[in-house]
Amino acid sequence: MAEVGIIMGSISDWETMKGACEVLEEMDISYEKEIISAHRTPEDMFSYAEGARAKGLKVIIAGAGGAAHLPGMVAAKTTLPVIGVPVQSKALQGLDSLLSIVQMPGGVPVATVAIGTAGAKNAGLLAAEIIGAFNEEVADKLQTYRLSMKEKVEEMRGDLHGS
Amino acid sequence: MAEVGIIMGSISDWETMKGACEVLEEMDISYEKEIISAHRTPEDMFSYAEGARAKGLKVIIAGAGGAAHLPGMVAAKTTLPVIGVPVQSKALQGLDSLLSIVQMPGGVPVATVAIGTAGAKNAGLLAAEIIGAFNEEVADKLQTYRLSMKEKVEEMRGDLHGS
Amino acid sequence: MAEVGIIMGSISDWETMKGACEVLEEMDISYEKEIISAHRTPEDMFSYAEGARAKGLKVIIAGAGGAAHLPGMVAAKTTLPVIGVPVQSKALQGLDSLLSIVQMPGGVPVATVAIGTAGAKNAGLLAAEIIGAFNEEVADKLQTYRLSMKEKVEEMRGDLHGS
Amino acid sequence: MAEVGIIMGSISDWETMKGACEVLEEMDISYEKEIISAHRTPEDMFSYAEGARAKGLKVIIAGAGGAAHLPGMVAAKTTLPVIGVPVQSKALQGLDSLLSIVQMPGGVPVATVAIGTAGAKNAGLLAAEIIGAFNEEVADKLQTYRLSMKEKVEEMRGDLHGS
Amino acid sequence: MAEVGIIMGSISDWETMKGACEVLEEMDISYEKEIISAHRTPEDMFSYAEGARAKGLKVIIAGAGGAAHLPGMVAAKTTLPVIGVPVQSKALQGLDSLLSIVQMPGGVPVATVAIGTAGAKNAGLLAAEIIGAFNEEVADKLQTYRLSMKEKVEEMRGDLHGS
Amino acid sequence: MAEVGIIMGSISDWETMKGACEVLEEMDISYEKEIISAHRTPEDMFSYAEGARAKGLKVIIAGAGGAAHLPGMVAAKTTLPVIGVPVQSKALQGLDSLLSIVQMPGGVPVATVAIGTAGAKNAGLLAAEIIGAFNEEVADKLQTYRLSMKEKVEEMRGDLHGS
Amino acid sequence: MAEVGIIMGSISDWETMKGACEVLEEMDISYEKEIISAHRTPEDMFSYAEGARAKGLKVIIAGAGGAAHLPGMVAAKTTLPVIGVPVQSKALQGLDSLLSIVQMPGGVPVATVAIGTAGAKNAGLLAAEIIGAFNEEVADKLQTYRLSMKEKVEEMRGDLHGS
Amino acid sequence: MAEVGIIMGSISDWETMKGACEVLEEMDISYEKEIISAHRTPEDMFSYAEGARAKGLKVIIAGAGGAAHLPGMVAAKTTLPVIGVPVQSKALQGLDSLLSIVQMPGGVPVATVAIGTAGAKNAGLLAAEIIGAFNEEVADKLQTYRLSMKEKVEEMRGDLHGS
Repeated sequence: MAEVGIIMGSISDWETMKGACEVLEEMDISYEKEIISAHRTPEDMFSYAEGARAKGLKVIIAGAGGAAHLPGMVAAKTTLPVIGVPVQSKALQGLDSLLSIVQMPGGVPVATVAIGTAGAKNAGLLAAEIIGAFNEEVADKLQTYRLSMKEKVEEMRGDLHGS
Repeated sequence: MAEVGIIMGSISDWETMKGACEVLEEMDISYEKEIISAHRTPEDMFSYAEGARAKGLKVIIAGAGGAAHLPGMVAAKTTLPVIGVPVQSKALQGLDSLLSIVQMPGGVPVATVAIGTAGAKNAGLLAAEIIGAFNEEVADKLQTYRLSMKEKVEEMRGDLHGS
Repeated sequence: MAEVGIIMGSISDWETMKGACEVLEEMDISYEKEIISAHRTPEDMFSYAEGARAKGLKVIIAGAGGAAHLPGMVAAKTTLPVIGVPVQSKALQGLDSLLSIVQMPGGVPVATVAIGTAGAKNAGLLAAEIIGAFNEEVADKLQTYRLSMKEKVEEMRGDLHGS
Repeated sequence: MAEVGIIMGSISDWETMKGACEVLEEMDISYEKEIISAHRTPEDMFSYAEGARAKGLKVIIAGAGGAAHLPGMVAAKTTLPVIGVPVQSKALQGLDSLLSIVQMPGGVPVATVAIGTAGAKNAGLLAAEIIGAFNEEVADKLQTYRLSMKEKVEEMRGDLHGS
Repeated sequence: MAEVGIIMGSISDWETMKGACEVLEEMDISYEKEIISAHRTPEDMFSYAEGARAKGLKVIIAGAGGAAHLPGMVAAKTTLPVIGVPVQSKALQGLDSLLSIVQMPGGVPVATVAIGTAGAKNAGLLAAEIIGAFNEEVADKLQTYRLSMKEKVEEMRGDLHGS
Repeated sequence: MAEVGIIMGSISDWETMKGACEVLEEMDISYEKEIISAHRTPEDMFSYAEGARAKGLKVIIAGAGGAAHLPGMVAAKTTLPVIGVPVQSKALQGLDSLLSIVQMPGGVPVATVAIGTAGAKNAGLLAAEIIGAFNEEVADKLQTYRLSMKEKVEEMRGDLHGS
Repeated sequence: MAEVGIIMGSISDWETMKGACEVLEEMDISYEKEIISAHRTPEDMFSYAEGARAKGLKVIIAGAGGAAHLPGMVAAKTTLPVIGVPVQSKALQGLDSLLSIVQMPGGVPVATVAIGTAGAKNAGLLAAEIIGAFNEEVADKLQTYRLSMKEKVEEMRGDLHGS
Repeated sequence: MAEVGIIMGSISDWETMKGACEVLEEMDISYEKEIISAHRTPEDMFSYAEGARAKGLKVIIAGAGGAAHLPGMVAAKTTLPVIGVPVQSKALQGLDSLLSIVQMPGGVPVATVAIGTAGAKNAGLLAAEIIGAFNEEVADKLQTYRLSMKEKVEEMRGDLHGS
């Protein structure tokens, strides 16, 4: 049974969104992934959001670009926390995606992260943090992850001084 | 039976959207208006869009601000032409509303007009133009409207030279 | 006799605008296409707009980039619905095109779609929706198109889970 | 023992941030609030973040404007979920606050909400959703809150048609 | 016989554009002013531009806001130098006006000045500089104007040190 | 004796600015070109501007990128018309160049054209228009140039319909 | 003998710039202030910059708005550190001022601070930090200033909890 | 003993930041460089900032991209002058980095330079100018550097005229 649902509007978002999956795997958090398009499959979007809590999901991660309605519309149909990932768009480079996701009206929040791959990775981590707030094992893994980040800085230091 | 449906996400959008109604009245085009919120009443939004063609609507005008999902989601649930009016938002002054409405993905268009009251007025006119493309009487009224615009310029000229 | 007129300011816009033509062909809607430059051939622009209704056009689609005046000026010379496609510009990536097209003053609307190729495709669909509001056959084709979009999502799902 | 910690960089942010408190009170979720300035009291910021999990906090909400470093730096010192509220700034109206909060590098997420008061209210709701993912009572209250939102739309409809 | 033609799209632009007139009066340069709307009186715009050189105009100043097409379309119909003044717009504060005026395609230039009243004043001065490049008397007046600007700085210095 | 002075801040601007030279050659207008850097050779900039009228220049074209001070500072030291060309910058793609050039304070205008190569070409044409306002021969050449633009549209039409 | 020179383009900048003076007075650092306009008094600007080091200045603070050339041009004429304060402009709210000041080409830096009054205050503090890097007394005063900032946070906390 | 400390958030910033080192070497100013990440190694950041004055540093240069917190947080922990270099980011091309660095609240300044490599080079020069305000030898080297810049313009002129 998956704890995190990862959805995206198109297969072209997968290149961005797979970073969220990688993080969740590293944290041993179960997840499911699906293509759900706000504009092409609105009914699927509604039923996905409506059924999310019942099937055991704790967090939904939704990635979309341009007039990115997927995260906000899913959030309108569930009271589970929804994380929105603004996918980098072609013309406006994700500024449209970001504003379409983050500027939600009072009443229906979307937890928005950075544009593009850094954001997708952070969406996975934020989902883990949400679960880790109530699960010590995940909290420990997050702590370990943070330590590994410090170690990577150490490696970079070696590279800088060796350079 | 209304030919144009005017919907908006909140009563606070009415100040902007009433300009669309005024134009339609001037053109003797029947319309209905309603508060339909993408985020607070998503089911109403879907049923409104799904039933629109059957009840005789020819055009839908949808106004929304911020992460303005109403026009695009209605457009996803009907093949009637949907006109989107970006309502001026507080912090970003409608740039967020504009991008959220206009940057729709290929497949689901929204006919976007200018931010704010000029846009709402033009939404009414655009609806009239759509109907007028198939209805000579409306086309004539549009022509008359254009002439009255020219006359207003004449009046302005009087004001300018009298000033 | 064409129902839709597609015009653009330069041959360099064709790469973008051909998406509108493809959609109209798919919908069996007759169209004509032409290079009409607001700044280089302003007289042609005026006579094109003035003659559009008489020759049977129902909708005009105009694509332009930068200080994109073509859609708005054509709209000023006809009461047919005019759809504006902001072509992606080099320096400002279409933000200038978008604002020049969408921010029309009250009185003369332009139905603006997204920047670039997605916008051109949607311009074709919006023209079809306008015609389809009064033509059941076109409405049916639009419905079929929507279904094919859902099927493409199904295919993407296969790709995602096969990946 | 508080479940949510609400911090802000200055007393001038209180006008914005109190909306988060009001929501939490409505949800019967315990919270604490404090002025913690990233730039004036960086040590307090670090000790607040370091001690947050041990004292039982599940979520931290941090509001800041301009070069808004508070949410991101707190997030760097805890693995609890941190929600960032971009406070509307004077010159750039919160665009600087938004980008400073949301564009976090891979590894340290901040759950960013809308600029200003809508964002603060949504920060409270998002905190409730996070808790409600693991607490049925809170989930029920969120469901009730959503219903009251629908009812408010009903009231607005009365106002619109009465107008 | 006027040397400079000042046109604007609406009487509401007069508050901005009168600064151009004041400068020309100060320089003893003859001018005429008129309301010419690109979108409401396109034929007047064309005939104004076409007749401008024949009636002795040397420079045209055109002010417009939003999707500001007046300067560029006039420029397309005359080879006289056209100066464009971006009038400050309500939602986007003149950024739309600026981009619509300045981003002209290769072939048809518009000499664009700053947004709003400073721009209008500078439009008058630029017209004087153009005439002054071929007229020593005007050149002398411009030189005197510059000296008066220096004197105003001297006065400001008194105010600063007296403060 | 040159009528137009073309200056630019760096040899890297030449790729952009050569378009201005080509136009002037086509118009048989004499010009000189030089590297004058506002920040590296401020004294040369001042003496160039101060001596410009005396040596017979009628117009100065100045191209610069980023914090583009060259056009505005030259304008501050001469009463000849100065045309500013915003060179496309690396990070902000010329938006910084444009705003630094166009937003001049009241008193010192810069005639600003589009960002990049289209702008440089138009700077050459604008200089020709300024000269052509007082020189019938140049005016005729500009008229011919416009006709050749129309002919190019005709060629494009052939390409479009042949395609 | 002043250690810091504070200059601004117009008396209208004084409301913003006085914050820099107040900080320097608090730090017992001698300063002088003057109106120096890049565009109206370019010669004064050059002689001010050229003479700055000889008369004992260690730092120059320059405030300007719009196409803000003063800081960068002063920096081009001295090798003293120059701090630029972007004054909030009317239409674009200081974004133009900021980009005109900060985007200097390689070779001539301007130490840019925030838009408006916060920036002016910080310019005073940055000047003090520069002097304090070589003067222990000033360094101590800066340390005291930081402590007073912490104390103000304490007061704010009282206000928050008392509220 | 180093006079300038150069820090950056990641090894990927080195390509940008090495320009600062090259300038300092040219000026014979001692420097040290290190990877210090605000978000991955916040404790190292604090101890670096706290120890900077004691170990003899006069200036700190900090480069970072996106939600660039490093310069501002270091500035919060030292009263040495801190120079911030906005590293060009992927999606928003450094606009986010710039605003996150420059828009500091009153009390804690960061001396911000241009986005990217020009900014990094200028950070090195600004550090040299700060030191050179109190060290005649460095001031002389800066003067020589400026002369070499003028000479490079001379070379460019040769290239332009030879071209």
